[in-house]
Amino acid sequence: MAQINENYLKLQAGYLFPEIGRRVREFQKENPQADIVRMGIGDVTQPLTPTVIHAFHEGVEEMSSASTFKGYGPEQGYDFLREAIAKNDFQYRGADIHADEIFVSDGSKCDTGNILEIFGQDNIIAVQDPAYPVYVDTSVMAGRTGEKMDNGYYDRLVYLPCTAENGFIPEIPKTKVDIIFLCYPNNPTGTTASKQELKKWIDYAIKNKAVILYDSAYEAYISDPEIPHSIYEIEGAREVAIEFRSFSKTAGFTGTRCAYTVIPKSLMASSSDGSEKPLYPLWFRRHTTKFNGVSYPVQKAAAAIYTPEGKKEVKSTISYYMNNARILRENLTKMGFQVFGGINAPYVWFNSGRGINSWDLFDKLLHEAHVVGTPGSGFGPSGEGYFRFSSFATHENVLKALERLKNLKWNF
Amino acid sequence: MAQINENYLKLQAGYLFPEIGRRVREFQKENPQADIVRMGIGDVTQPLTPTVIHAFHEGVEEMSSASTFKGYGPEQGYDFLREAIAKNDFQYRGADIHADEIFVSDGSKCDTGNILEIFGQDNIIAVQDPAYPVYVDTSVMAGRTGEKMDNGYYDRLVYLPCTAENGFIPEIPKTKVDIIFLCYPNNPTGTTASKQELKKWIDYAIKNKAVILYDSAYEAYISDPEIPHSIYEIEGAREVAIEFRSFSKTAGFTGTRCAYTVIPKSLMASSSDGSEKPLYPLWFRRHTTKFNGVSYPVQKAAAAIYTPEGKKEVKSTISYYMNNARILRENLTKMGFQVFGGINAPYVWFNSGRGINSWDLFDKLLHEAHVVGTPGSGFGPSGEGYFRFSSFATHENVLKALERLKNLKWNF
Repeated sequence: MAQINENYLKLQAGYLFPEIGRRVREFQKENPQADIVRMGIGDVTQPLTPTVIHAFHEGVEEMSSASTFKGYGPEQGYDFLREAIAKNDFQYRGADIHADEIFVSDGSKCDTGNILEIFGQDNIIAVQDPAYPVYVDTSVMAGRTGEKMDNGYYDRLVYLPCTAENGFIPEIPKTKVDIIFLCYPNNPTGTTASKQELKKWIDYAIKNKAVILYDSAYEAYISDPEIPHSIYEIEGAREVAIEFRSFSKTAGFTGTRCAYTVIPKSLMASSSDGSEKPLYPLWFRRHTTKFNGVSYPVQKAAAAIYTPEGKKEVKSTISYYMNNARILRENLTKMGFQVFGGINAPYVWFNSGRGINSWDLFDKLLHEAHVVGTPGSGFGPSGEGYFRFSSFATHENVLKALERLKNLKWNF
Repeated sequence: MAQINENYLKLQAGYLFPEIGRRVREFQKENPQADIVRMGIGDVTQPLTPTVIHAFHEGVEEMSSASTFKGYGPEQGYDFLREAIAKNDFQYRGADIHADEIFVSDGSKCDTGNILEIFGQDNIIAVQDPAYPVYVDTSVMAGRTGEKMDNGYYDRLVYLPCTAENGFIPEIPKTKVDIIFLCYPNNPTGTTASKQELKKWIDYAIKNKAVILYDSAYEAYISDPEIPHSIYEIEGAREVAIEFRSFSKTAGFTGTRCAYTVIPKSLMASSSDGSEKPLYPLWFRRHTTKFNGVSYPVQKAAAAIYTPEGKKEVKSTISYYMNNARILRENLTKMGFQVFGGINAPYVWFNSGRGINSWDLFDKLLHEAHVVGTPGSGFGPSGEGYFRFSSFATHENVLKALERLKNLKWNF
């Protein structure tokens, strides 16, 4: 008799973003004429840049002739892409990461979920609260948590509250944890971590033989030269950290699909006989056995962002979104909201300051202003009362949304 | 202290195909002038067809302008592709499968590995022996087996021997199993299953509340009209089977990456309170939480194979490979080998009939004829003594390989 994985039954009904999608579709169905501005899901709106498109077409063209056709590629990605990544994203910043420590994949959502497979069942996992829901949901699905408790937390998962009171910088846990998800620039709060701050986590991980799962999907949005783009810019990280990166937000690849994970060869974890084993061969085995590489033309397109022209274009698209972020930040502040993020990150995180809960604010904005944001509580209990706007909308839509928000009646 | 997933330590050193790659690279390094013919890994050599290339370019072009740009798509795939699949691959053959039961993915290797996530830890898994190594290796990695035993079998895994004696059609297990991997047309043996044969498995699954994981990645190679392409052509399958399909071998997508999994809404499995739960919402949750959809231009390219022109082109490429299969089969038979498969499947499976073991034959062919095949024992203990040739090589290379084999000295 086949048995289901009962951990799935612990999950609440819907993953956050499909739930937002459901409510928006329902409203649109009842109000077909409503011109909805979407700043909920962090999905980009600007097209792939000319250099990327050119390389993408070239890759497709190669598939049309037997002499240039590409079948199965290396599961970890083509050398041309891995080498461009190692050089531009790491070595250029003084981070000692080599091409063969990079595993190209089809998305950080997949990687941050799948990475748990190489760790044992009994590890204690810590997450920032609020956090990108995939960290929590995949931990639940993989049986790394207990049941959901009445306070909204999962048993056995360690939550690291990030609130206005601590500047959204969580405290180092007082209890011992084994695996720590950290996301900087942070989704959803838009805050960043300094080198000193990250050094504290690395020291904790070295002392407790913990592993840091560092999600830097938004590093391209950092403008402050003091803020690290990679955790490997900080000494000791090669011994304790895995880093996840994505082309989704860097270069508009949300619908094109390409990302990568860095596993330094010097990163170790324990086995039950007390010996330390490198994690690299485990992920290598996982990646080559359960994955078959990213589409060749997509890898060609991704590599194009590392050319001089590609870099210039990507920078320009990022400026476009960061101008949106600035306008959102300034206007929401003027309207009396407490606003965070939006300076070195594409997300603007705000609080009504008047006690309205996140989903009520979501419904109010959707129904009265036809504006979609993301309810902070969808990212974890400490996000309650907060709300996230993504700056990935078009400039025109950001202005339109703000205009409507200004005209809204606030009965609180 | 972070702990590794110790199940990985049960695996033998390398996944079969990387091991073949390693030996070939080593030989090539020592013999740089050797002109190696590769018929080992089942990788295609013929380019994407003109209709597919055209649609692929169109998809890329849409990504270049804000008005047609596609960001995150539905994780399960675009409706245009899911509807084409449901209609052409199932409804056309009388199989009652609907578009919303289809989950588009980036590969069957991923899907057949990931599917175990929705099942509990205690399920007993059965595999054909020999079998595509991913079924076994991912079962091991996911903790669904015990240790590897001296006889080459993993403890707790149920092996269903497929040998010349039983015509490579395994017997229905005498013990109760919960999950059964079946692959038809079979990789590696090239055999097929009749409707009557599949009916037996469906009846077993209904009686024992087991689930069949049916891999039909090679269905496009069936020419005999009596052989079913989908398990859903047989009554009762909607209640007990999940089917995996891929565009890799059907349309040359090994380097382009697109596949799909079918989960009928009527498929149930048990939970610990004795109630039956549908598996559909579990995979839906898994797919939307841990995956972010296939690249949009790739989905456009995949959909093109369902157009009248696309169908014609795909058929022509398949004929090209099946002509290779026929030539391999006929010539190997003439050379005195016992030959199987290669009629409704792209794989030719043969035995020296003289007791030489698979890896010895691999090394002999590589070193003396510069021909790469796949050692049968790499697919499981019952494959020992057998050898697989893939017909996905170019026609010229197939002739070249056979010529060299004919001139080889056989000292047994």
